[in-house]
Amino acid sequence: MADPSPSSAKFVAEDKLIRWLRRRTADRGGRLIGDDAAVLPAGEEWAVTMDSQIEDVHFGRGLEPEAIARRLLAVNLSDLAAMGGVPVFAFLSLSAPGDFDHRRFFAALVAECEEYDLDLAGGDLTKNRQIVAVMTVMGRRPRGQRWLLRGNARFGEDLWLGGTVGEAALGLALLREGAVMKGDSLHVPESLDLSGDLLIAARRAIRRHLLPTPQLELGRWLGTQEEGAAIDLSDGIASDLNRLCQESSVGAEVEIERLPVPSDSKRLAETLGCDWRRLALAGGEDYVLLFTLPNEAEPPKRLGCVRLGRIKEGGVVLLENSESTPLLPLGWDHLAAKE
Amino acid sequence: MADPSPSSAKFVAEDKLIRWLRRRTADRGGRLIGDDAAVLPAGEEWAVTMDSQIEDVHFGRGLEPEAIARRLLAVNLSDLAAMGGVPVFAFLSLSAPGDFDHRRFFAALVAECEEYDLDLAGGDLTKNRQIVAVMTVMGRRPRGQRWLLRGNARFGEDLWLGGTVGEAALGLALLREGAVMKGDSLHVPESLDLSGDLLIAARRAIRRHLLPTPQLELGRWLGTQEEGAAIDLSDGIASDLNRLCQESSVGAEVEIERLPVPSDSKRLAETLGCDWRRLALAGGEDYVLLFTLPNEAEPPKRLGCVRLGRIKEGGVVLLENSESTPLLPLGWDHLAAKE
Repeated sequence: MADPSPSSAKFVAEDKLIRWLRRRTADRGGRLIGDDAAVLPAGEEWAVTMDSQIEDVHFGRGLEPEAIARRLLAVNLSDLAAMGGVPVFAFLSLSAPGDFDHRRFFAALVAECEEYDLDLAGGDLTKNRQIVAVMTVMGRRPRGQRWLLRGNARFGEDLWLGGTVGEAALGLALLREGAVMKGDSLHVPESLDLSGDLLIAARRAIRRHLLPTPQLELGRWLGTQEEGAAIDLSDGIASDLNRLCQESSVGAEVEIERLPVPSDSKRLAETLGCDWRRLALAGGEDYVLLFTLPNEAEPPKRLGCVRLGRIKEGGVVLLENSESTPLLPLGWDHLAAKE
Repeated sequence: MADPSPSSAKFVAEDKLIRWLRRRTADRGGRLIGDDAAVLPAGEEWAVTMDSQIEDVHFGRGLEPEAIARRLLAVNLSDLAAMGGVPVFAFLSLSAPGDFDHRRFFAALVAECEEYDLDLAGGDLTKNRQIVAVMTVMGRRPRGQRWLLRGNARFGEDLWLGGTVGEAALGLALLREGAVMKGDSLHVPESLDLSGDLLIAARRAIRRHLLPTPQLELGRWLGTQEEGAAIDLSDGIASDLNRLCQESSVGAEVEIERLPVPSDSKRLAETLGCDWRRLALAGGEDYVLLFTLPNEAEPPKRLGCVRLGRIKEGGVVLLENSESTPLLPLGWDHLAAKE
């Protein structure tokens, strides 16, 4: 008869890993790991995010365990940034094959959590043929600030972006063409024939894809403002701006010449046969904040934000040479198919 | 060039599903679904659990979407029961193939959440070749009660079980032998030659495996007691009792003749060539509470608890015919290999 308990044999190893983790995190949330549930202190209002990183979906096979851990944390913190929250606790559910290097994954995750002053407080571990990492992050609202909601955009506000867009999609395109990043070293297939500025743009694009930077500081600044909505760009401006507008019952106008795409990235996109406008509008995984502010407000210069357009009545449109066309909530495939 | 955005195309469908879910949950937590994070009210101390259900790991291919949803919720609520908590919010991360019936899954999950007075408050959805469902549940502590911790067992306390054990493992064995349960109808392969009592025991075992019942009421009762530890049995008495004893720095003695295994289940185990003692001690996935209480205390009769042994100094041992042997924290494989 077959083994009637698929999960029992692995648990001695899981207990060992949890003991190691507790030692690593003993001076922080380590006390929380190990019971049937983690107990969190009362008194806070919590924003709770849940996001995943799945092999062959969000990243390709062979990505280093450290990179998976950092990306998982980053995409969750980006959601929290879009709420104006401060990260406090993380929970992890990790399924991975027996030969996955859990120690490397957890060492990187714990170090990254320390960086963000965040406690890894619990989770579960399973042996599985595919790497599936899911995280829940709980964040608190800074005292005296508000939560940033998607539904707070108002007519007449300006539409802003927290940074450049399209580079993450460009980085993914490079990885799919055979580029490989191990630690800090980049290998680009000779067939791509990249050098000089384009090589620099390629490295930046791949780093942007593999390790997005959650805009927590920008989110906190936005939380100090009395008005405005925010969302983080995970699926691209086309999809996410439509979501924000739908939640706020408003329309918006994006001026195409304001799209913040570095000129070397535009040239790199051209070299790869991609349209930079499409990368910027529908590329996805940029993880910068898309937000609105009253006309008189402006984020601190050091945060590198760019005014992209405005909130108005009607639908969501793209403005190019004073001609406006609808910007539909479609992904790359659909925009590509229209050409 | 390949599509540089793996996640964008599916999101129109995701938005549609989320709108449907919002309508379904509008009178409850529906307002919480849809922003970058869910915002939870302040004032409570939270117990947070995270557990998963993965195809080919926790359940076999072809399990009905409703059963996956119910099992996922049940294993999380069982962890919360072991803390003495009351469920309040659930978060779901679901990865599944394009032909997975999300509506059936969510309809069952929402109905089950209503049953437990629990709000589905957020999560994420991904298209993936394998079904991986991960849930985070947040529970509150009933006013005036304590959290049940693994580390609270004291010398001299009695050791208790919240119900029968070994049946879930027996159910899994039957499924692996080709038994199929669809809705309420059970099909058992003729080769197993089961009838009468054994067929009744088979049905009960499979239901026990597919749909464990979280012992929330028992957990709440235990939380009213001033002393005692608790853990839920996910990996079997052998593993989980060792965990409880390690956290409490105590030993324990289990009397083998007190193991609560129904007599028809024992006979069914025999028919299948399994040793019922091994099923009971290392079978796993029973999801009943294993707990300790001072000698004078006793749970209400209606909760069906059984006194199993006692907390003592030294290691964790099994007592049979006044002879004691070490009960090691090993799963089925290891116990089986010893014979």
